[in-house]
Amino acid sequence: MRETWQHDDLLNAAVEAVARLRVDGARVHCLTNSVAQAFTANLLLAAGATPSMTMAREEIRDFASRADAVLINLGTLDPDRMAAMEIAARLCHETPKPFLLDPVMCHLSPLRRDFAIRLLQYAPSVMRSNAEEAEAVSTAIAGLPAGMGIPCQVITGSVDRILHDGREWQVANGHHWLSRITAAGCAEGALMAALASVAENLPAASLAALLWVNVAAENAAGTARGPGSFQAALLDCIHDLEPAELMKRAKLNEKL
Amino acid sequence: MRETWQHDDLLNAAVEAVARLRVDGARVHCLTNSVAQAFTANLLLAAGATPSMTMAREEIRDFASRADAVLINLGTLDPDRMAAMEIAARLCHETPKPFLLDPVMCHLSPLRRDFAIRLLQYAPSVMRSNAEEAEAVSTAIAGLPAGMGIPCQVITGSVDRILHDGREWQVANGHHWLSRITAAGCAEGALMAALASVAENLPAASLAALLWVNVAAENAAGTARGPGSFQAALLDCIHDLEPAELMKRAKLNEKL
Amino acid sequence: MRETWQHDDLLNAAVEAVARLRVDGARVHCLTNSVAQAFTANLLLAAGATPSMTMAREEIRDFASRADAVLINLGTLDPDRMAAMEIAARLCHETPKPFLLDPVMCHLSPLRRDFAIRLLQYAPSVMRSNAEEAEAVSTAIAGLPAGMGIPCQVITGSVDRILHDGREWQVANGHHWLSRITAAGCAEGALMAALASVAENLPAASLAALLWVNVAAENAAGTARGPGSFQAALLDCIHDLEPAELMKRAKLNEKL
Repeated sequence: MRETWQHDDLLNAAVEAVARLRVDGARVHCLTNSVAQAFTANLLLAAGATPSMTMAREEIRDFASRADAVLINLGTLDPDRMAAMEIAARLCHETPKPFLLDPVMCHLSPLRRDFAIRLLQYAPSVMRSNAEEAEAVSTAIAGLPAGMGIPCQVITGSVDRILHDGREWQVANGHHWLSRITAAGCAEGALMAALASVAENLPAASLAALLWVNVAAENAAGTARGPGSFQAALLDCIHDLEPAELMKRAKLNEKL
Repeated sequence: MRETWQHDDLLNAAVEAVARLRVDGARVHCLTNSVAQAFTANLLLAAGATPSMTMAREEIRDFASRADAVLINLGTLDPDRMAAMEIAARLCHETPKPFLLDPVMCHLSPLRRDFAIRLLQYAPSVMRSNAEEAEAVSTAIAGLPAGMGIPCQVITGSVDRILHDGREWQVANGHHWLSRITAAGCAEGALMAALASVAENLPAASLAALLWVNVAAENAAGTARGPGSFQAALLDCIHDLEPAELMKRAKLNEKL
Repeated sequence: MRETWQHDDLLNAAVEAVARLRVDGARVHCLTNSVAQAFTANLLLAAGATPSMTMAREEIRDFASRADAVLINLGTLDPDRMAAMEIAARLCHETPKPFLLDPVMCHLSPLRRDFAIRLLQYAPSVMRSNAEEAEAVSTAIAGLPAGMGIPCQVITGSVDRILHDGREWQVANGHHWLSRITAAGCAEGALMAALASVAENLPAASLAALLWVNVAAENAAGTARGPGSFQAALLDCIHDLEPAELMKRAKLNEKL
């Protein structure tokens, strides 16, 4: 693994995606957990995207079909949410339209793990998870048809990893207060979905969201007095962050 | 259209309603979307009102019957919510008790549009919507019985409009950051419902809510650094705003 | 009633519980109302605890069984929530594992009151309620089997009361802005559940949560400009509060 931070084509494409989202916007339909809904909507609005959040199977087609991207986050899962999620995933697959799968806590619940795997048949553009969730999915799909792959996978942690087409990039930005507020990761997934609709490619969309949230978090920590004021400052900094600053601040590394 | 701002009887009645709510309070039962629940409750509390928010059809009578006003907001609609909303709307109609209908995104979903129209038979005191939602309802009810009218309609936009009994007033207060936080409009509808229970008439209640939220937003924008701090500052300013300041700051116009 | 504030064994045990939670953490599974979910999660995170919040009966065993404590809060009740709550309560009773019952607004709804009483058969570690809710439960269970008692009861108000084993302590800390933000009481219940998993005894856990939230509120009110900034400052102060400061600031009294 080389220890130099690379400012390469991927970084350029990520910064370009951020700039484009701020100018053009994007509609993101979020099928997400009830804890994260409000913060996710606020983060998308701060970034220049437009959220919708309805969950009923009766309406999901009307909303998902007009969105530019869809988020499917398995937190606070229940049978009604599952039905809507499968309709939305199928719609994205058929359109096609980018959708991001966040299999929240699927390592703790066989129901979620199996449902996450079920959604893989609709080929999510990006799966975003932590290492334990990624492991739970990987272990379970061993032996399943190869076509169930994921074009791009983001594994979050103290260093975030982007895996795509045999390559891996690592991003070391962030602040520990991100883990002291709820829904930061869930909202990052929604932003990643938004960026997938405007970025040149999926690793660039993934990198753009990781940098935007994590560099904003570094900035927010400079003014916040604790996790409560950090939450508000994070939205302020998401709103203010200039694409050019991301270019300078990125701690990006390709694992070779 | 005259371009002078009018400080007339309507404005006096609106300011009087704000003063009364701050002193006497009001209980508002909110049947609202899951994204907006917490911010709506916080805005009502900041204004001096008391929210309740339960949604189950088994309990809706117990809560709606003791409220002074009811909000029915169609965001994140589902069959269970619809059942509770119809029970509450009928109860308000029979009591009678003010209720406000906010047909969120009904222009995007036939289910919502048809349900909004169904609720019109219970004669909501105020319908609050944006222009697209108002258009969707108006188009659909053309040819339906005339008795399905709405006593007072508020159409929000860069300039907000109040329509009542053949007259129209326009309100030009506000700040663009209101559109960069989620639930500001939904919470404004809840406040309008609260004010409908203490105001002299429905246009005064509508104006009072528009002024309270939008002048507070102008004040909040003066101290906020972005949409995150704006959200907190908005609640602070809702709490602090003196009725007399509304009188001075109102950009109110009657369209003639 | 003696008017001197006592710094006794109970206070030492409460402060010890706060210190332990900050170091060791605790997993709390929260079955709570949809209005309070995000703030509750944020308050637990600020205190050093780890929340989970899923509600579906299909998953509740997976999540409750790995938690250190469970919160059952009856706000926004519905049949699905009730099913999950009963599964979780039984699991806690059989394990055994601390669980806290918060019978929100049970004095307004026979459904809630009866369900609260039904849950008493699983012997909640602590019941936390206001005086009206406590009265509704007490009146209804008169004549029922004595075994349905509650080991520890907290009755909140301008002075909070802790009742246990024939004794009563009173806590006079707090700030009136706590009643101008939503979910502060609900989140305090979640923190009480967390502390019940690390405290020496239940009155100490109860006292620890009351002091932590109420002294933090006193601190937050010193910097906040209104209920919006107070909400953020409260989380900051929950995060910052040193156990030693609780010892000095506690307004604790035993009723004799």
